[in-house]
Amino acid sequence: MKDEIKTIYSNLDSFGDKTVKIGGWVKSVRASKDFAFLDFTDGTCFKSAQVILNNTLKNYDVVSKLNTGSTVIVEGVVKLTPQNKQPFEIVAKDVDVFCATDSTYPLQKKRHTVEFLREISYLRPRTNLFSAVFRIRSVAAMAVHTYFQEHGYVYVNTPLLTTADCEGSDQMFKVTTLDLNNLPKTKDGKVDMSKDLFGKTAFITGSGQLHGEAFALAFKKIYTFGPTFRTENSNTKTHANEFWMIEPEIAFCDLDGLMDIEEDMLKSVVNYVVQRCPDELEFLDKFVSNGLLDKLKTLVKSKFTRIDHKDVIDLLKKSGKKWEFEPTYESDIAKEHEKYITEYFNGPVFIKNWPKEIKAYYMKVNSDNKTVAGVDLVVPLAGELIGGSQREDNYDILIQRCKELGVDVSSIDWYLNLRKFGSCVHSGFGMGFERLVMYLTGVDNIRDVIPFARTPMNCQY
Amino acid sequence: MKDEIKTIYSNLDSFGDKTVKIGGWVKSVRASKDFAFLDFTDGTCFKSAQVILNNTLKNYDVVSKLNTGSTVIVEGVVKLTPQNKQPFEIVAKDVDVFCATDSTYPLQKKRHTVEFLREISYLRPRTNLFSAVFRIRSVAAMAVHTYFQEHGYVYVNTPLLTTADCEGSDQMFKVTTLDLNNLPKTKDGKVDMSKDLFGKTAFITGSGQLHGEAFALAFKKIYTFGPTFRTENSNTKTHANEFWMIEPEIAFCDLDGLMDIEEDMLKSVVNYVVQRCPDELEFLDKFVSNGLLDKLKTLVKSKFTRIDHKDVIDLLKKSGKKWEFEPTYESDIAKEHEKYITEYFNGPVFIKNWPKEIKAYYMKVNSDNKTVAGVDLVVPLAGELIGGSQREDNYDILIQRCKELGVDVSSIDWYLNLRKFGSCVHSGFGMGFERLVMYLTGVDNIRDVIPFARTPMNCQY
Repeated sequence: MKDEIKTIYSNLDSFGDKTVKIGGWVKSVRASKDFAFLDFTDGTCFKSAQVILNNTLKNYDVVSKLNTGSTVIVEGVVKLTPQNKQPFEIVAKDVDVFCATDSTYPLQKKRHTVEFLREISYLRPRTNLFSAVFRIRSVAAMAVHTYFQEHGYVYVNTPLLTTADCEGSDQMFKVTTLDLNNLPKTKDGKVDMSKDLFGKTAFITGSGQLHGEAFALAFKKIYTFGPTFRTENSNTKTHANEFWMIEPEIAFCDLDGLMDIEEDMLKSVVNYVVQRCPDELEFLDKFVSNGLLDKLKTLVKSKFTRIDHKDVIDLLKKSGKKWEFEPTYESDIAKEHEKYITEYFNGPVFIKNWPKEIKAYYMKVNSDNKTVAGVDLVVPLAGELIGGSQREDNYDILIQRCKELGVDVSSIDWYLNLRKFGSCVHSGFGMGFERLVMYLTGVDNIRDVIPFARTPMNCQY
Repeated sequence: MKDEIKTIYSNLDSFGDKTVKIGGWVKSVRASKDFAFLDFTDGTCFKSAQVILNNTLKNYDVVSKLNTGSTVIVEGVVKLTPQNKQPFEIVAKDVDVFCATDSTYPLQKKRHTVEFLREISYLRPRTNLFSAVFRIRSVAAMAVHTYFQEHGYVYVNTPLLTTADCEGSDQMFKVTTLDLNNLPKTKDGKVDMSKDLFGKTAFITGSGQLHGEAFALAFKKIYTFGPTFRTENSNTKTHANEFWMIEPEIAFCDLDGLMDIEEDMLKSVVNYVVQRCPDELEFLDKFVSNGLLDKLKTLVKSKFTRIDHKDVIDLLKKSGKKWEFEPTYESDIAKEHEKYITEYFNGPVFIKNWPKEIKAYYMKVNSDNKTVAGVDLVVPLAGELIGGSQREDNYDILIQRCKELGVDVSSIDWYLNLRKFGSCVHSGFGMGFERLVMYLTGVDNIRDVIPFARTPMNCQY
């Protein structure tokens, strides 16, 4: 079956009075004695098609009573209707019912809550909301790949299985092939991990950055795009235990160069989606997040502000506002602060040069020896979207920083060696893909932008 | 630093006599008293550039003695040399040494074995071989995304964490946040998995197919492209415990339609890589796999044969050959058989309609009730590249097949429900991405096409 609703919409003129044959699903049927309207989708685009059923159809009685979700193969003639809201309809000659659903079908023709729909993740992409969200997720993924490939980045599949626990193994899932009910033991009664498939304790990773850096020092510009994992036992709208990350690393690039790339990339990705998903965004703007399209189009044209962390603190202190979290020069920026700052500058803001005590060991220590060359991008209405930094390229300073922050250097000796073997100024960032999709769709719960979300006590399907 | 070697190669005319500033790494230096040749790469393309160092350089003594892998920032003038093999050289005005390597640098200017290079996975992308392989891997990934997105497929990120063990939990890694040395126990002394993050035993998955089918019944055409895991304790050239898979699912598509898609996709992806990686392929053809380019170009023009499993067995029996594994109508096809068949037909062969006893429960049972609508694609010199099938769309038959093959239906009730809620004829396939990259590069060991390979007892870096 080569005909598709999407093709008809995008080639209207060539389909007028043509006979098509399309497999798809019933959204609803409105029937009278003489004829019926079948709202019909084949999944190829966000929009559905209207099929006209005349009572001369041999199985009119059956088809005109079909339930939502039933599968039909429609053969009919495309009639252009330029005067109508829908630019064409299909006058059915034959409708073959492949699978008729009954009243046990969970998605009836009415509004369902997102909470209910989360319980049926395997069916919810058939609703308008999730059809829009997951189409945009797919297009956004392609936007990311397109941006980096067109700019000469090499896509690197960094490993998920790892034995390096430098990110803090308490944040990582352990992985094993051992029988938990019958674990092999060493003489001193501990679990004998040497009997496991890799001969030691292995984890699934929370980041591909370290491996990405190794490849950036060979290919100059690389990016990863794959799943990552956190064991956080927190039930919030923004936490999931499995999510996708984009982690580019760029050699011969300092903090300023990094901000240039982040800004250019984000505008390009948002613009790509705005160009390609007008129907989905219109729907979301109307029913999920008023002003969504405006927000996205404004971002593409925005000038991103660049400001030091300490100057942000000054602004917050001078604001005269009463804060829940008092801003200090030594601490992180709270959500309320991010909101104020993006409103103050009326656009996205890069907050850079953070106090080194609260940032990771791999960030480049600035010449003041107090701050590191890290940068967070906060955007209006969404907060932090990207975190990045220039990486420490000096072997001795990096070792010193590991010691200060209690990082076990033995498992990352190879990473440290990169500072002896062809070290260079380099930078990179991480962007949570779900956070981007939430920003693009206006959906405010991470569970609703992941096909099958994994959160504490919730690993169904 | 905006200048790149890649840009110079692709815009030669506009760079003649221009001053450029490029950061990169020394491949080798050949020095005389008056001048030296620096073979120099910045990672942006497979080819390197030649830098001319005159002894008038203020640090000539240092630069002319630099070791392989040292980092330098070269400022110089591009001189076009159309009469030479290399179309340009850079006459250095200033060379800034950022990081000089010494004799401890593992990659000296000589041939290293792939076995040695596997021990230094974090440095090997700097060698010609792995530079070519990982560039092709990246381009091939983009070729896959481009094909499916241009053909209207929705990219779906199916979950890796799963509690469904229908694929056989003995083949899957268990995942836990529990302390293995201090496991909580139930009254009867078993491990109390209800105390784990998801409240039950979880795995990392070996396939996204089941979830992919759910999305295909909403979007018609979907694909996955992500990592998968197997616990197989086998050390062969084609097994790894972590690898990437591409798994498209297509609604309203039968076995014939599926073969059309596989053939079209594979030709498109191979052609995309051939067009974009001439330097890499030329190198691999010369040093790794003689005839590689011919093999790829021939595939793109091939007609793929389609033949039933039983007819393949007939051919093998009639061949008069002495087989290590005797071909039978009830059994799988061995490597030696695949080789014979692709040579017999002088091209790729779809082997279809397999005995149901040796295939998975989800494959559509044919009307003969003896075979299933599965298909394997075998290609010359590489064997099986893609495995797919029409999926069983009948609820009762699928339940029956699960029972026959001992599949626990309780954990996949939602998957079975898809046959009641809008079931349709649908098909899908799985292509191992590493197998594709091996085919594209001529590299014969899976460890050498994965950035950081994971195999039994081997999870370094």
